[in-house]
Amino acid sequence: MRGTNNLQEEIRRVKDKVDSLMLGSLLPISDSVHEVDLLFKMMRDYPTRQGKGMRPFLCVTTCKAAGGTEEDAILTAASIEMFQNWILIHDDIEDGSQLRRGEPTLHRKYPVSLALNAGDALHARMWGALLGNSQRLGHERTLGVLGEFSRMVNETTEGQHMELGWVENKRWDLTEADYFLMCTKKTSWYTVASPCRLGAIVAGAQPSVLEALRSFGTDLGVAFQIQDDALNLTGDERKYGKAKSDDIAEGKRTLILLHLMDSAGPPEKSRLRAIMNKPRDDKTPEDISYVLSLVDKHDAIGYARKRAEELLKMALLTLKKIEWPGDRSSAALLESFAKYAVEREW
Amino acid sequence: MRGTNNLQEEIRRVKDKVDSLMLGSLLPISDSVHEVDLLFKMMRDYPTRQGKGMRPFLCVTTCKAAGGTEEDAILTAASIEMFQNWILIHDDIEDGSQLRRGEPTLHRKYPVSLALNAGDALHARMWGALLGNSQRLGHERTLGVLGEFSRMVNETTEGQHMELGWVENKRWDLTEADYFLMCTKKTSWYTVASPCRLGAIVAGAQPSVLEALRSFGTDLGVAFQIQDDALNLTGDERKYGKAKSDDIAEGKRTLILLHLMDSAGPPEKSRLRAIMNKPRDDKTPEDISYVLSLVDKHDAIGYARKRAEELLKMALLTLKKIEWPGDRSSAALLESFAKYAVEREW
Repeated sequence: MRGTNNLQEEIRRVKDKVDSLMLGSLLPISDSVHEVDLLFKMMRDYPTRQGKGMRPFLCVTTCKAAGGTEEDAILTAASIEMFQNWILIHDDIEDGSQLRRGEPTLHRKYPVSLALNAGDALHARMWGALLGNSQRLGHERTLGVLGEFSRMVNETTEGQHMELGWVENKRWDLTEADYFLMCTKKTSWYTVASPCRLGAIVAGAQPSVLEALRSFGTDLGVAFQIQDDALNLTGDERKYGKAKSDDIAEGKRTLILLHLMDSAGPPEKSRLRAIMNKPRDDKTPEDISYVLSLVDKHDAIGYARKRAEELLKMALLTLKKIEWPGDRSSAALLESFAKYAVEREW
Repeated sequence: MRGTNNLQEEIRRVKDKVDSLMLGSLLPISDSVHEVDLLFKMMRDYPTRQGKGMRPFLCVTTCKAAGGTEEDAILTAASIEMFQNWILIHDDIEDGSQLRRGEPTLHRKYPVSLALNAGDALHARMWGALLGNSQRLGHERTLGVLGEFSRMVNETTEGQHMELGWVENKRWDLTEADYFLMCTKKTSWYTVASPCRLGAIVAGAQPSVLEALRSFGTDLGVAFQIQDDALNLTGDERKYGKAKSDDIAEGKRTLILLHLMDSAGPPEKSRLRAIMNKPRDDKTPEDISYVLSLVDKHDAIGYARKRAEELLKMALLTLKKIEWPGDRSSAALLESFAKYAVEREW
């Protein structure tokens, strides 16, 4: 199993399996009470849209590399997908996002109050689903999985608060270290570190492996986020599924923007700040174009991508040092994935 | 331990114990990162306001009646309090509420996006706290507690969707059975049924006891909600902690309002509907006064209170049939509590 094609096939294969478990039995399907039935429909909305499926792939693949089986990890992998879906519902409300996976966000299809509540309902179903692990994995390992989920949600909500707080308080006095910390919390834990660690926990891996996966996951997660930030400005909207340059509209502190703030001359910098601090709806198309022109002029994307490559290199070094007791081809797939996550175009 | 004074003292005693556990070790206190520190402060905001503390009392008292100890139940009781706090943060956003426990709601003190995220953070901490049960209770009982929490959150979010959906769709074609179902889901589970059942699960009670507590809890929970709806219209705002007649402003379908829709004459009914269907901010003080005058004229509160008394009677019958293996005075306290919950003035 080598090369990007095999990787993409494998991601797709795991994703299909996880989707069928999630939609077939973890999420409720219908109810005789009209309103409850609509709630279930809303809970199933994001999960039925086309997601990337990277996280369940990481969970299942790490489990196999660590000596477990795919079946051991599949329920946990599906629960990670449920996490991704409820947090996106809430993130989209918090960020005022318009599009998700190429369709209107849930709170634009339905009243915000109902969308918020549907996110909570999905959140609770995630924990409920995880309890089903005890039959196959036993009580001890099930509680280990729950503990990792707890850590993962804590980190993610802290990162989300950091990002929202920076926008709210118009903060631009931020260093790369600030960005890396926010990004580790907001993205790395739930995108790479926890999916890998969960697969390892399911397989009964040693603490040293979990620690290595934390390090691998945080580095790769930040690199992944940098690439995501770059794609938001340069990517194909249809493949990418979010509105182009939406991060600028939203005022997000990306590595690209932080670098720009550093390299721009004083007049550029003051116009840039004024634009970035405007509320989303006050930003004009000219504002966005001006920011994009500065991004080009100072090669901010090139700079950010270089940093992403450095992080990838560190992540790969960490990965190489892990002595996997299980399937070797799965360990190799993790390496392919890491490269792919940073070099992808969607 | 008899009479209302003892009951109130006992509720207060348990509440203080639970608060000190929750604020002292379950909720994070501070962080060196400014934004994370603010998140923690927001998570601690509602928990430090003066709540009633009924739910932890029910959990601890049922545990003792079922043969367990207070220490067995205290962590679970504190987690119930955490549930109450995160769901209130989100409910207040969903309902557009202004006051909570006599102070501005969290999303009025801070940006809505940050309040929403703080609710999620508190939600996750609740599950994390529950994992701590395994040391004292063992893995099996810990998973039983988690399973009941899962049921409790599912029911609550379904009930919340029902209520919000009715307002959203301007539905008034509702029967008492509709109201009872919504109320069972939205209020009974997390207010009475699950707190009692959790205490029983912690103590290792038989399934028949859990089933009786479900029945007791759903009846008493609806009676409690009816009394809450009545207090919203008649109660002392300072004791009650919410804005008076806020349910009318919000357009809530209470038993009182449903009865009014049934008993009002055609012209009254059409004006009543028009008022109740207005958005919160469009309702004038005259609108509210008119609704209140109809409530008086048709004795809708008297009617609702009679229904609450009937439910209380059923709940007490169910409670009497339970054969408690544990502390008798705790079983007696549950009975006092049931009466008090329906007859209270706050």
